[in-house]
Order: sequence, then C-alpha cells, then structure tokens
Amino acid sequence: MVAESLLTEKQMRNAKRALDDATEEMIKHAESLGIETVFTRQEKYDESLLDLGKSRCYFGSTGVCCRQCAMGPCRIWLDELPMVYRLSTPRLDKGTCGASVDTIVARNLLMMVGRGTAAHASHAMHAATALLKTAQGKTSYKIREPGKLLSVAAKLTLDNGQRIEDTAISVASQAISDIVSDESVMKFATSYCPASTGENLQALGVIPGSVGAELLAEGHETSMGTMTDPASLILHAARLGVADIASLVISSEFQDVLFGIPRPVTSKIGFNVLNKSKVNVVIHGHVPFLSEKLVEMSDDDELLKRAKTLGASGINIVGCCCTGNEVLMRHGVHLAGSNLQQELVIATGLVEAFVVDVQCIYPNVENVAAKFHTKIITTMREARLAGAEHIPFDEEDAAGVARKILETAVENFNKRGTNIFLPQSEPKDLIAGFSVETCLSVLSKINSEDPLKPLIDNIASGNIYGAVLLAGCTSPKVTADASHVAIAKALMKDNVLIIATGCAAQACARAGLLTPEASQYAGDNLKSVLALLGETAGLGKSLPPVWHFGSCVDNGRVIILISALSEKLGVPIRDLPIAASAAEWVTEKAAAIGTGAVTLGITVHLGVTPPVIGSPQVTDLLTQKSEELFGGRFIVEVEPGKAAQLLLEHIKEAREKLGLPT
Amino acid sequence: MVAESLLTEKQMRNAKRALDDATEEMIKHAESLGIETVFTRQEKYDESLLDLGKSRCYFGSTGVCCRQCAMGPCRIWLDELPMVYRLSTPRLDKGTCGASVDTIVARNLLMMVGRGTAAHASHAMHAATALLKTAQGKTSYKIREPGKLLSVAAKLTLDNGQRIEDTAISVASQAISDIVSDESVMKFATSYCPASTGENLQALGVIPGSVGAELLAEGHETSMGTMTDPASLILHAARLGVADIASLVISSEFQDVLFGIPRPVTSKIGFNVLNKSKVNVVIHGHVPFLSEKLVEMSDDDELLKRAKTLGASGINIVGCCCTGNEVLMRHGVHLAGSNLQQELVIATGLVEAFVVDVQCIYPNVENVAAKFHTKIITTMREARLAGAEHIPFDEEDAAGVARKILETAVENFNKRGTNIFLPQSEPKDLIAGFSVETCLSVLSKINSEDPLKPLIDNIASGNIYGAVLLAGCTSPKVTADASHVAIAKALMKDNVLIIATGCAAQACARAGLLTPEASQYAGDNLKSVLALLGETAGLGKSLPPVWHFGSCVDNGRVIILISALSEKLGVPIRDLPIAASAAEWVTEKAAAIGTGAVTLGITVHLGVTPPVIGSPQVTDLLTQKSEELFGGRFIVEVEPGKAAQLLLEHIKEAREKLGLPT
Repeated sequence: MVAESLLTEKQMRNAKRALDDATEEMIKHAESLGIETVFTRQEKYDESLLDLGKSRCYFGSTGVCCRQCAMGPCRIWLDELPMVYRLSTPRLDKGTCGASVDTIVARNLLMMVGRGTAAHASHAMHAATALLKTAQGKTSYKIREPGKLLSVAAKLTLDNGQRIEDTAISVASQAISDIVSDESVMKFATSYCPASTGENLQALGVIPGSVGAELLAEGHETSMGTMTDPASLILHAARLGVADIASLVISSEFQDVLFGIPRPVTSKIGFNVLNKSKVNVVIHGHVPFLSEKLVEMSDDDELLKRAKTLGASGINIVGCCCTGNEVLMRHGVHLAGSNLQQELVIATGLVEAFVVDVQCIYPNVENVAAKFHTKIITTMREARLAGAEHIPFDEEDAAGVARKILETAVENFNKRGTNIFLPQSEPKDLIAGFSVETCLSVLSKINSEDPLKPLIDNIASGNIYGAVLLAGCTSPKVTADASHVAIAKALMKDNVLIIATGCAAQACARAGLLTPEASQYAGDNLKSVLALLGETAGLGKSLPPVWHFGSCVDNGRVIILISALSEKLGVPIRDLPIAASAAEWVTEKAAAIGTGAVTLGITVHLGVTPPVIGSPQVTDLLTQKSEELFGGRFIVEVEPGKAAQLLLEHIKEAREKLGLPT
Repeated sequence: MVAESLLTEKQMRNAKRALDDATEEMIKHAESLGIETVFTRQEKYDESLLDLGKSRCYFGSTGVCCRQCAMGPCRIWLDELPMVYRLSTPRLDKGTCGASVDTIVARNLLMMVGRGTAAHASHAMHAATALLKTAQGKTSYKIREPGKLLSVAAKLTLDNGQRIEDTAISVASQAISDIVSDESVMKFATSYCPASTGENLQALGVIPGSVGAELLAEGHETSMGTMTDPASLILHAARLGVADIASLVISSEFQDVLFGIPRPVTSKIGFNVLNKSKVNVVIHGHVPFLSEKLVEMSDDDELLKRAKTLGASGINIVGCCCTGNEVLMRHGVHLAGSNLQQELVIATGLVEAFVVDVQCIYPNVENVAAKFHTKIITTMREARLAGAEHIPFDEEDAAGVARKILETAVENFNKRGTNIFLPQSEPKDLIAGFSVETCLSVLSKINSEDPLKPLIDNIASGNIYGAVLLAGCTSPKVTADASHVAIAKALMKDNVLIIATGCAAQACARAGLLTPEASQYAGDNLKSVLALLGETAGLGKSLPPVWHFGSCVDNGRVIILISALSEKLGVPIRDLPIAASAAEWVTEKAAAIGTGAVTLGITVHLGVTPPVIGSPQVTDLLTQKSEELFGGRFIVEVEPGKAAQLLLEHIKEAREKLGLPT
C-alpha cells in the first residue's frame, strides 16, 4: 500500500507538472534561464541510478524515522522496504530506546500538528494584538465592523462594556489568554463549537487549554522517553487540532472586525496580472496587517508621482498565496499565483518588490530574485531570510512601514532589466468574497425570518447533495492544481456544493471554476440553486459552483458556517452530509487544520500520502477508529477520481443516516 | 570530519560496551535470556551487509534531513556522503522549498532545544503548582525551608507578604507566569543572571519571554517557509536555552523549599542495592513529587506488616536516573542505575514495581517487564506507556497515590519468579548531597564573614585550577560511563574540581569517584584543598574529588553557584576558569541546557557528535562565533583524552586573561 500510494503520486507528476498552461510555460522559461524551482527540485527525486531508484527517503515518507535524541537517529525496518534502503539499515523494529513504530509515527505527527497550530496561533496573536492596540488608540486601523465585534463578544458571553473599544479590549484579551496563559480551557474553542460536538470533545478530553500550555505539554510529551502511548499522542494531536481551529477563528473574526467582512468581488488570477508599465509589488504570506496598508497606500499621490517620474504608470499590488487571498477577498486585488508559483512570479522579471510576511515563503525566492532586480523584503520577526532586506512591520506604525516598502519598490522600478517574460495565457476571471455573512445576506432575501432555511431545504431535497470544502495547498508531488480541480468537477457534477479556501481556491480559480459560467459543470439541481442564488444576490447571473471563502485561516469561517448548520438542525457536525478535501496538502498547518476538522467530526480527504503509513496503529486510529471517537476520519487517496467517489460515498451515507433522499 | 567523529564513537563502543563490570555482566545475562536492551539495539547499527556498511542514517546524524512538510522529506547531498546513501539520494543542495543545509540544520537544532526546554518547563510547572497548592493548604507537603523561600522572593524582588504562605503564593505565581503567559520577560531568567551577563543577553535579544510564548514562536518559526535565516534560528535556540536554565532554577529551588536543601549524605550505587528479601520498588524519571511520598511511606506500619505477611522483610525503595538522584540527595536512597541501566535493573527479576514519572523512560521497559512479574506503573499524564498500569499522581492526594502504588508493589512480591540474577560486584559507596548552601556552610567555617573568599583564594592561587561540570546522560554510542570517568580523572589530576549532576554523576559514582579515597586521583594542590574542606566539614576525611550536585535539573544549582562567583568577583561568567562537559549526552534536555550554558558564557564540551555537523554555518556559529557573541562555545570531541585537554586549555586561557598563575 505504501509503495502504491507513492507510485501513484509519481505517475501523476510525471504525466504533467502543472494543470495550468501558464504555469507550465513559466516553468519552462525559468528552466531556460537556469533557474531552479520547486518543480525542478521535485523532479530530481525521480532520477535513478543503477536501477536502484532514487527517491524521497522511505523512512521519512512513511513516518518511521526518529530524530528525537542523540542515541538516534533511528529508523524502523518495514517489510516492504526497498532494497536500496535495506543496504544501509539494520533490521530493527524499535528505536534504540525501544520506541515502537507506532510511538515514533504518532510522535512525529503530533510534532507536525504542533508546528501547524503554533503557526496559526501566532497569526491569531498578531490579530489579537492589532485589535487590542487599535482599541487602545495605538494604531491607524479602525474597528470597521462593530456589529461583528459585538457578535463575537456575545458568542464568548463577554460583558460588552460601554464603548465599542472596551468590547474590543475584552475580546482581544480573551483571545490572548486563549493563546498563551495558564488557563485550562480555550474559550474560543468551546464558544464556537456546537454543544453536541463540544460534549463529545469534553468526554474524550480533547478540549484544549491555551495554545502555549498545549505546546508546552506537546514539547514535553514528544521529548525522548516521555509519552510513548500512541493513542495518547494522537489524542493530544486532536486537542491541538481543536486549538488550531480556534486560532483560525480568532484570526478570521478579528481581521473581519478590523478590515471588513468580505462581500462578493470580481478579480483575476494569473502571471499576467503583473503590469509591464507599472511598479509591481507582490505581497506573499498569510498575515494581512501590513498588506492592508500596502493596498491602501498604493494610490498615495506622492508615491504615484514619484513612480511616474521614474517612468511607471502606477503601482500595481498583486497577491500571492494567502496574503493574496486576504486582499482579494476584501479589495479584489489580483492574484499572481499560489504557493507553487511564487518563484515563477519573480522569474517574470517584472517584480520590483516581493514583500513577505510569514509562512509558505520558499527560501529559494532569494536565489531567484538574485537573478533579477527584484527586492525580497521580509517584514515579520518570525520570518527572516538571510539575504533579504528587512523592513520590520509595526502595528503602531503600519502606514509608515507600508510607505517605506512602497518607496523601496518604486525606486527599484528603473533597475528592472530586459529579461522579462509573461506567458501567453490571459489571467482568469473569478468571483471571490464569500463569507458566512454574505451567504446569510443572500439567503435572507429568500427567507428573511430564517435565512438558513432555504439552504437546509435545498440540502434536504437533494438539490444540494452535500458540501465539500476544498482546502490546503497545491503540491508538486502530484500535478499542481489537478487534484483539486478534478475533485471539484466530479463532485459538482453530482450536485455537491464546493467551498474552497487558500491555495485550493486559487487552483480552482486558475481552472476557471470561480466563474458563473463554470456552473455548466454542475449537476442540474445544483445548477438551478446557483442560478437562483445568483439572481437573488443581484449578480444577474449564476453564482460560481465553487465559493471562495478566503485564505487558509478562513477555514475558520467554514467551520463557523458548519457549526451554524449543525446547531440549526440540532444534528452534530459528524452527521452532516459534508466533508473536506486537502487533495494537495503540503504544510504542517494543513495537518493541524485537518486533524482539528476530523476531531470536530468532519471527514477529511488527503491526496498526498501523509507520513504516517508506516504505523498500522496510527493509520487505523486516523482512518478508522477516529470515526468512532470523533465522527470524522481521514481518507487517504492519491487518485482524484477515486477520492471524489469516496467523498460522495461518505455524503451518501450521511444522507442515508439522516433519512434524506440519496 | 563527520566520518571521523562517527568512527571514533564506533571504535569506542566496539571496544567495550560499559565501563562498569556489573553493567557488562547484566547485559550478558539479559542477552542469555533473549532480552533486548539499549546496548543490543545499538549494536545492530554496527552490522554490515555486502560490505556497504549499515549505520545510523547519515542524513539524520549530520542534521541534514528535513521532515517539516508534505513536499518532503528532503535530504541534502553532502560531499562525504557514503556510497550506500548516494544510491538512494538525488544530488540536491537544497530542500524542495529551497531551504539550505544551514536552514535545515539550524531548524532541527531549534526544535530539539524546544523539546528540551518544554520538558524542563513542564517539570517547573509541576514544581510551581505543588508549591502553590501547598501554600493554599491543598497538599500534605510542607514548606520545609522558609528561609530559602524568602531568599528566592528577595532575588525576584517580590513583596513577601505577612505569612510565609503568601510569599510562597507570589513566588509560585511568578514562576507560573514565567512558564506560560504573555509576559515578554522571564523574571526567573533575569533575576538569577549576573548583571554583567544579563546585559549581554539583553543586547543580543536573547532574554526569553514566557516559555509558552517562546515555544509558540519556535513552532511558528520552524514551520515550513517561515524563519529560514540560520543565525536567527540559532539565536532563538539561545533564547530558549536561557529559558531552559531558568526552568531548572525554578524546579531546583522549589523542590528545596518543599523537600529540604540537600546536605552531604552517604549512599550506594549498583544493581545489588536491590534486596532479595524485600519488596523492591524502583523509582525512575525526574519529577520527585510522588517519589518523596513513596520514600516517606515506605516505612508505613501497615504496608510493612502486609509485606511481612507475604514473606518480605521490608520495602526497599531504590532510585534510577534523576528521580533516583533527587531522593539520593535528600534521603540517601540507594541508586540502582542510570538511564542506560533501566532495562537491566528489571532484568534482575527482583523488581516488584517500576514506578516512573517523566522523561528518559525507555519504552522498552515494558517489554523487559513482560518477561518477569515486574509491574511498570506510570503516574504522570505526560508519560503513558501503552501497556503499563496507570496510577495517576495528584498533588492533592500524593500520600494516597503513594500508598496505592506501594500496595500494588507489595502484593506483587509473591509473584516474583525464580529467574533472578544479580551481578558479582558489590555496590559502590558514594557521598552525595552537595548544594550551594552546603558549600557555603562549609566555607563559612573557614571565613564566616565572606564564605566565598576561601574558594576564590584557592582558585586564584591555583590550588583549584578551575572547575568543570560533568553533566548529562550516559550513552550507548560510546562506552557507557567511560567518557565521563576518563575526563573526570584527567581533569582532577590537573587540580580541576569536578562538579557532577544527573547520570554523569552516577557514572562517576559507579567508578568510585564520589568517595574520599578517590581524592588519590587528584593533583596534590586539589588534594589538600579537599582534605581541608573534608576536615572543616567534620567528615573526618577528605571530600570526594567529584561533588554530586544532584539531578539534571540541579544544573540550575550549579548555575546559581557560578553566578554567585561571577558577582562576587565582578567578572562575567564568560571570563571564569570554568567549563562544562556533556560527554555522553543523549536527550533534548541536554541540548537545551548546553545551549543555555553556552549562551550564559560557559564553554560546553560534547562527547557524542551532535546532529549539526552537516552545516558549516551552524557548526561555525556554535563552536566559534558563539564565543564572540556569548563568551561560551561548544567543543565537539569524542575522544575523552583529547576532550580533557581542550577543557584544560580553555581553563588555562581564562586564567591567563584573569592574570592568574597557569
């Protein structure tokens, strides 16, 4: 099974590197310039020598490698170990300390989920700090959505205080306490969880304390000779997963409060959103506090004047990865690419400044930028690149920092070289900006008393057969974008509504699925629902069959929507006809979100083999036993057609259990 | 260099597995019973097949393996990569994301230090909770050292309050806040650090915030595509190292407050401290809150009566690893073994209950115990073994839990089999119980006005040429105990005073170096100082040339002593004629303590190759540049003779700089 899964990945990527023609064109251009990218580095793992076969490390790929202590590193001998690894490895079924394969795999997974949760909680901490400081009058941000802030406070049952600023302070303080304090219950986790689901979490002991306290315990437990019971390790991963989702909720809610709730917006995606006549600034990462200011500042008169003096017709901010999604959702800023396109965007030769905040920033962007005039600018203390210019972000001087960065970009315009290249393909149109509030506002035009009712009715009737969240990254281990797109198309054909976030949403966008026209791929029932909703929303045409719900932290939005449905129906999350798919997951954050989702009762598909398959017990816990415990489970299936089938079967079973037509 | 270092380890362990004859005898006995131990599993890595050579993974051993994300695992091709690894590995100098070998190695090190710090901070949290609950009257512990508590409060400049309980509450609360809160300065770090050293840490930005906040940042930074600058990663490891040492200080100080300050005590070490006619209970781990009660309860009338009914002549509590050190230091409880002996202790067939708390508990103890009547009893929520009996410790019912455990042990006595074995060698005598207070009390008999003066005078004159702390674990990668013992003997010959903690101290004890008689190995000058001090202390004979300062968390004691010397002399720690050696380090905790010590200005020797040597930049940062930055640096030298020489040279240089005779 291990070999088969890894082989399918190889066959897929060898057939085609990227689904998107423009990406393939840019990879070839980069290759012609001798520029290494994530795609060329991936290809190196498919080389072979003496017919023994080079590959990614078999031990690491299956999770059976332990590097905890200086007695190690240790590797566990698996029955299906390829010959080339047998040569270098003693036949041992335990680590030197005696750790079993199950302990080692479970511990590695827990550490992975820990890093993902830390990344999201750190993002949430930035959001909470920004909200707190804004309420204290220390920033130039505004509380743009006081109504939303009050609803967050109500959810947390916090006393509102007299002024909206007082509410902001108490909400932000609660978040900070949830992130790092000695509190034993994370209130954002319990307050946003439907009661039926919360009771189960409580019974299983997977309600998290503060993220800091959980990470402290995780670090301790995973240290050599401490927690060795695989089931306890997996339960801790589940607890961290819940903490991760609560961290997403904090970020997503607070960013809405400060920057506005997304409303439907049209935009474009593709390399050609870079503008040859303008100063191009790419913003990349995940935390949108600086990028909001960069967007705001990009039509500053002085900066535009200086740009024009240097021969540019303006300043063109474009997004990459999830910082891109954030400014797309709220301002319609164009997207240049996802995680996998970041090096290629620079290889166009058109980027004056490549401004990064945190997470998913490939260190190789430095090396690509060195071949052009492009300045890589790092801005956060958590993410430095050895050779980049560092202009530190400061909430209390966000505008000043944004101005400095744009000045740097503008001054770099006339250093642009002649080695510029854009692919043939035009950017793809897209509609984004879906949020829980947007959905409810459209639905309330159908039923103002009970806005969720039309949605529930359509689910009940089978017009909407179910809903699947496509989330996570795009991966060079398969054909970039292709798994997401194939799954989306297969599911919508069977009337499954697709919600998408992060780079998965961008993959769908590149394939044109975020357009009204794409509803042609939907089954007839879903098609009429989308048409009706589009009309109700006043779009004059159908809604797209894939709803772009935002960045990867906006998976929190999706959980809020799911929780609302669960509470409205009085049905635990585990029984809803829904699922999620991280068909091309890459990051530890994806592992954390996925684990959290499964813990809340959502079945999650993974289309890239997770490094756990070396352990029978962990594989069983995650793919079988978890369903008993939490109601959700992981489905591992690399081939997207089969994956779509499995997701449909899951939804069918849920519908059957609920007595709905299948 | 890589190959050479790993080869030296192999030659050492192949020559002899353990310095101690009794250990070798027990290994052979275990082998005769078909019992796998840490020694036999280590040996498997020395097998070879087809002359290609099996070994520990070369990538993991050098630190150049990255398993952060699902694009990986990635491995970096090194010039000296052995042929068997070349067959399976593509020639790549970066990870798939573009991470350089320096980024990968630095990130792995930071994660290792993170786990170590988490382990110690979690220990400190248990200590703080116990102190807090005791002050609140919720436990049966007592504040045994109110004087010490007041001095801790004074050090933290905390208001004492009226009652000693109030002082305890404010001190414990400060510790809890230092461990997990959103505070940006860890007060136990700044308050215990000499001003001259503290200023340097401040300037370098390595004063830690709360451990929880640092771990949050660490998890975020080490997640894929975030912090890639190797120097920043290493500075964060330094910051965590300081947090680690502050966590040690919390544990050590609070345990003294609750259980008493150690005073010189005689005891024994060896397998034969197990008693054939008694109920043998081995206590193993690090956190002594339960073990204190077990010792207290072991002469309980009812329990003894029941033991006698079952044919036992009593209850014999013996220690293993650092829980062993804790009860040795305060009660003279005998030691059965160190980390490496834990399986062998069970293989005697004489252990009724093997009671573990946290850390360094080899999962294989379960498998060994399964061959005998021995019950493995886990007691802490952070350390479960899948098949062990779990009797959860609770500070509020410590006596009840201890009684239950001893009852279980007693009831197990008559299930003891006939397959029992003890080695020929008698246990070794030892003197332990050194603490800062003990040292000062002896010295104050020489100079009551200024107790540190006699020590300083002897250092200045060269009677004590310098002091070296032997710390950390014992390792199966070399000859167990041998590196510690060789270094201790070589250094004392040149009049260097040896302080030892943890399993390193036990290694010295097994070699008889914790006895007055061992002063024969000391140089003449040191010998007379030891004789004088022994006489002053009223021992009637010399002090041993190795001073047992306690468990591995008691490295905090040593730092307190060093800081006192630094402040008294007005000389920063970095300029003192001292060093530390973790000649057989194993755990992440050792990595954390070592990093913290280097950051405070103490040069630290490592005698087992650390998994960083694949990165030129990280190696340079840790072994060279760190001296510029912090004043301390790592010395990596596997061969103990050479290591002792390097440590002596370091001390000599320090003496020269201070203008002292060399």
